[in-house]
Amino acid sequence: MKNISCDTLIIGAGSAGLEAYKAANEKGANCILIESGPLGTTSQRSGDIPAAILMAAAKRVRASSNLDAFGLRLIGEREYDTSEVMNALRAVRARGTTEILSVIYKIPESERIIGRARFVDPYCVEIIDQDLNITFKTAVIATGSTPDIPYEIAKLGDILTTNDIFELDTIPKSLAVFGSGAEALQLGQALSYLGSDVTIFSRSNLWHLTDESVIQVAADEFASKVNIAFNSVITAIERENDSYGLYYIDDSNYENYLKVDKVLAVNTRVARTQGLNLRDIGVRLDKRGFIDIDNTTMQSSVNHIFAAGNITDANISTVQSKAQGRFAGMNAATYPLINVMKERVNLKILDADPSLAIVGMSLESMRDRARRGQSFIVAESHTSSGMYRIQRKVNGIVRLYVDEASHEILGSEMCASGAAHLAQFLSLCIEKKMTCEELASYPFYNPTYEQVLSDVAGNASRTLSRKKVI
Amino acid sequence: MKNISCDTLIIGAGSAGLEAYKAANEKGANCILIESGPLGTTSQRSGDIPAAILMAAAKRVRASSNLDAFGLRLIGEREYDTSEVMNALRAVRARGTTEILSVIYKIPESERIIGRARFVDPYCVEIIDQDLNITFKTAVIATGSTPDIPYEIAKLGDILTTNDIFELDTIPKSLAVFGSGAEALQLGQALSYLGSDVTIFSRSNLWHLTDESVIQVAADEFASKVNIAFNSVITAIERENDSYGLYYIDDSNYENYLKVDKVLAVNTRVARTQGLNLRDIGVRLDKRGFIDIDNTTMQSSVNHIFAAGNITDANISTVQSKAQGRFAGMNAATYPLINVMKERVNLKILDADPSLAIVGMSLESMRDRARRGQSFIVAESHTSSGMYRIQRKVNGIVRLYVDEASHEILGSEMCASGAAHLAQFLSLCIEKKMTCEELASYPFYNPTYEQVLSDVAGNASRTLSRKKVI
Repeated sequence: MKNISCDTLIIGAGSAGLEAYKAANEKGANCILIESGPLGTTSQRSGDIPAAILMAAAKRVRASSNLDAFGLRLIGEREYDTSEVMNALRAVRARGTTEILSVIYKIPESERIIGRARFVDPYCVEIIDQDLNITFKTAVIATGSTPDIPYEIAKLGDILTTNDIFELDTIPKSLAVFGSGAEALQLGQALSYLGSDVTIFSRSNLWHLTDESVIQVAADEFASKVNIAFNSVITAIERENDSYGLYYIDDSNYENYLKVDKVLAVNTRVARTQGLNLRDIGVRLDKRGFIDIDNTTMQSSVNHIFAAGNITDANISTVQSKAQGRFAGMNAATYPLINVMKERVNLKILDADPSLAIVGMSLESMRDRARRGQSFIVAESHTSSGMYRIQRKVNGIVRLYVDEASHEILGSEMCASGAAHLAQFLSLCIEKKMTCEELASYPFYNPTYEQVLSDVAGNASRTLSRKKVI
Repeated sequence: MKNISCDTLIIGAGSAGLEAYKAANEKGANCILIESGPLGTTSQRSGDIPAAILMAAAKRVRASSNLDAFGLRLIGEREYDTSEVMNALRAVRARGTTEILSVIYKIPESERIIGRARFVDPYCVEIIDQDLNITFKTAVIATGSTPDIPYEIAKLGDILTTNDIFELDTIPKSLAVFGSGAEALQLGQALSYLGSDVTIFSRSNLWHLTDESVIQVAADEFASKVNIAFNSVITAIERENDSYGLYYIDDSNYENYLKVDKVLAVNTRVARTQGLNLRDIGVRLDKRGFIDIDNTTMQSSVNHIFAAGNITDANISTVQSKAQGRFAGMNAATYPLINVMKERVNLKILDADPSLAIVGMSLESMRDRARRGQSFIVAESHTSSGMYRIQRKVNGIVRLYVDEASHEILGSEMCASGAAHLAQFLSLCIEKKMTCEELASYPFYNPTYEQVLSDVAGNASRTLSRKKVI
């Protein structure tokens, strides 16, 4: 048995792990990085990046819809051959993964071990199938998450997850998608635009939205563009030669049958903690295997073992994963000296048609906060003027949550074209503790999508000043 | 002769004038508004709004270009019938102008006079062709600007300006555009995308850009998408039945001939000061007739006479016009009590393909400032990763100007897809006096266009830290 040692051991070479490695290294720690393929980070390989690439192609096809409103009439038929879309997607994706790999390959071989780690004790891991033990002072676990398929569905065989969908040669002729999250909505819509006959089986509380008014608009908007079966109960799925037969009871209690070529299951993800032996060394996990951490220090229940990225929560974004990774690496390197991470504004964006976004506090967290005595008001604007009218994208909604005492903007949920830009701008407003009055008088360029923020902030100001009068 | 009087007289019912009326009214001034059609504000009728509507249609047509990169292949020919585009444009525009008119028509008839004003003395105007004199304590002049056509061109007849182009029934088969400003680039490109055979005669210092690197990228990008003849000298224009023949010497000294159906001249705009008799009452004008004002108070050289909007400068945006109008109206109402307007961050956006933007200080103003001893550094990023790669929009450039001493971000010029969003975000960064280090570590969502701001700010930080070491 070979024994090596290091200051900080990093397990996982994804978005979080690589950031942890870089940060620990910068702080002077002698590091070892353990990776166990497939390389290239989940984000780049099967996560938000390939999904965004697919959506970009889908939106190109879709861009030629609603032409009448612009006075444009297409002469003749329009049909797209989409047989090369998946290849084009992988070509773009390859540039991103290559960049990640070039970062990994710059790490000296002595500091980079390929294999699967298993904790022997809180200061030692063994590399499975290799005669190697590694002792360390501190560790960062960043092994991420992976799609989970319920047993009943999995046993049918050939069920697609986000691990497989981007590897397909062609776009399936018909597809059932199970899930209400980003992947289900984004991939379902993109493949539908690209010509697949898609049905999404979704709960009606879409994505992470908690604001009923936004959910209503989003549900209507998605349902007008792609088949969505909200709140259906699937009673049976059968394999029928090369296809699948689905029996389900829909929202109105009707029984339905659907035949599809492929099934994409993106309901849930599970933590990649199996085999790490974490419980035995005292690292606390939740029911689904995710590591409980202190979100300000990235420490697990075992103080010198840190965790970062999707291993702590499958729903955090790549940006958050990287921030956690950077912080975990830094703290692991300086341990027992621990820094507390500055809380950044929550920012979640779903890039679809239309896009969804949550910035700062969701309506649900505002309500929780109100129960502790901190009142707030809600302002609402519809995207009916300025650039929205010009682009004929007038079905969106932006809801703003403002503290009643300080008039500070605390959060927003929205469903609107260009939501990514509105959300990014609002995140800075929240970070800078702007009041709704300040935002209402902010000189937005005309015409832009961002002007709707000044509308909704103006509505908030008026609501607050009316309250004052009474 | 009828004589009436008021506290504050407002001349012009455009973007600036209406804001001035509202602000003065709110401050309790007894106001009269003089308007002399066509109603609806220049911005809504022949300015940035109809231009943006035309560009929206043009981008729809253009969206189906560069399909190969997405793995999309169009089956069969694609051709658009664009005969209804101008009608669709006017239908959308009508909603905006109707909103403006509904504001105007809410003004009591006793406070709204239709006619052309002429100053009799600094406290009295007469309404031409009416038996009416109005005396006032203070006045706001907001009569805007109008396109100017050089005599040599005008005498050919039927030359288009922005006053006419949006009234056309159909898109001209071929078009020569004279100008380097927003209108020339935006309308020329839009009409070209919509099927017109367009040639833009432009100087190579495009629009308001002053940064040579950005100008270079922009010139290449525009030249790859629409015919632009940079720095050509037009030697003769002749009317040939229903068309025009142009002889010109191009950049490489070759003589050329071009036959076009229509000529759009958008080189210059002149102030609508003719007939107001301003010089006689002591209001100072510049050579082209624009009113010299103190930009912080909106006062002309005659203290109780204010001016706002395009009558002070044809290049200011609608947002600036409105802000000036609001302030002029307020100051006119409270005169001799005068407030100084808070300086807002300069923000200029040209919505084209790609878009151009200037935020905060231009490179030229940074250089002027440096001559007074305040050093700065320039950072540059190309739009090569993230959402830009995904959307295959990798030809853009963002240049950032940062104060060397404080590391504060002071300005930027750019040519990039989504520049409107980058510029709007940067304007808030500048307003909040963010340093390049703060912007570099700002957690942008992934993937978004806005991430390029963190790249360019990171480059600025590295340049500054290298400087420190030396």
